[in-house]
Amino acid sequence: MEENNPFLNIIDFIGYIDQLKHVTRKNALHDRSREENTAEHSWHAALSALLLAPYADQPVDVNKVVKMLLIHDLVEIEAGDTFVYDSEEVAKQEPSEAEAADIILSKLPEQQGEMLQNLWDEFEARVTPEAKFAKAIDRFLPLYSNIVNHGYSWLPYDVTHSHVREIGSIIKDGSTGLWELVEDMLDEAVQDGYLNP
Amino acid sequence: MEENNPFLNIIDFIGYIDQLKHVTRKNALHDRSREENTAEHSWHAALSALLLAPYADQPVDVNKVVKMLLIHDLVEIEAGDTFVYDSEEVAKQEPSEAEAADIILSKLPEQQGEMLQNLWDEFEARVTPEAKFAKAIDRFLPLYSNIVNHGYSWLPYDVTHSHVREIGSIIKDGSTGLWELVEDMLDEAVQDGYLNP
Repeated sequence: MEENNPFLNIIDFIGYIDQLKHVTRKNALHDRSREENTAEHSWHAALSALLLAPYADQPVDVNKVVKMLLIHDLVEIEAGDTFVYDSEEVAKQEPSEAEAADIILSKLPEQQGEMLQNLWDEFEARVTPEAKFAKAIDRFLPLYSNIVNHGYSWLPYDVTHSHVREIGSIIKDGSTGLWELVEDMLDEAVQDGYLNP
Repeated sequence: MEENNPFLNIIDFIGYIDQLKHVTRKNALHDRSREENTAEHSWHAALSALLLAPYADQPVDVNKVVKMLLIHDLVEIEAGDTFVYDSEEVAKQEPSEAEAADIILSKLPEQQGEMLQNLWDEFEARVTPEAKFAKAIDRFLPLYSNIVNHGYSWLPYDVTHSHVREIGSIIKDGSTGLWELVEDMLDEAVQDGYLNP
């Protein structure tokens, strides 16, 4: 790293985050052809938020939501992806992701490091309308892919309807409309046999 | 498509654009492990723009730049990726991408379709400071990956220094600082033998 050149630090950082394309998640693409990586998930989330912003329960600054979703999973470069249905992994997630954020963001010049840290802290705290809506989108997408690809990351892990509802209920805090759709989707998934009752 | 329900149209669209994760490009990840797809490239571009915005030659509305980069390659779902060093392909690119934009954006409700069409038109026209800077970032990234991975998509196609400079010169219109860095990188690439003189 070039200690004294903020521009070159950012260029290095842009090279470093290429690694997010290597972080694979449990859920698959809609056509089941392969598992998803976190970089493409982040793109999907940011663009989905831009499109669904009118359906947030509270008015949101959509630009901030988009930025949150672009950076929300950078920590996975160091901490890896946590499968939301693995309770042991989830329990360890917070300290490990906070450490990862420190490591990662210290690579940036102060101005950019602070901007990303603030976005990440706000996202994780889930207090502002923007954070609630961003979390809703983040939760919705893997759930939606499981609907379309008929339980790719549900069936092999014996995930149940009540567990998906519990994990997914964060969606309700950001968008009631989206949550109602999800409830219908989950009922159908159980009925069609790709989600355990 | 649910003709009369904008919300469900957007949900369908979010499913449809999952296909961008299948569009592969000629250039590879920084570690050469595989070729890049357009969804993860779009994420990388949007986040890079957010970080590099202070180095744009003219002040930019970074939120608009980010949005442009999130959607700039959606057309590839229908039109495929065009290799910038293949002149025949490039010549056909514009009409085919404009048609693709029509097909894709007509799937959205009017409000969201217009928003994306305006962003895409502005990006393609390369007149506003935002479009110039977004194009600079879009051009920089595959070039940077070729620098890091030592010409993965240059050497097999006999791409030359002057061709990369010609294609890359769009960067100069958005950020002189970034262009100067690129010029140095290209000289080094020739010297080290992973770019033909």
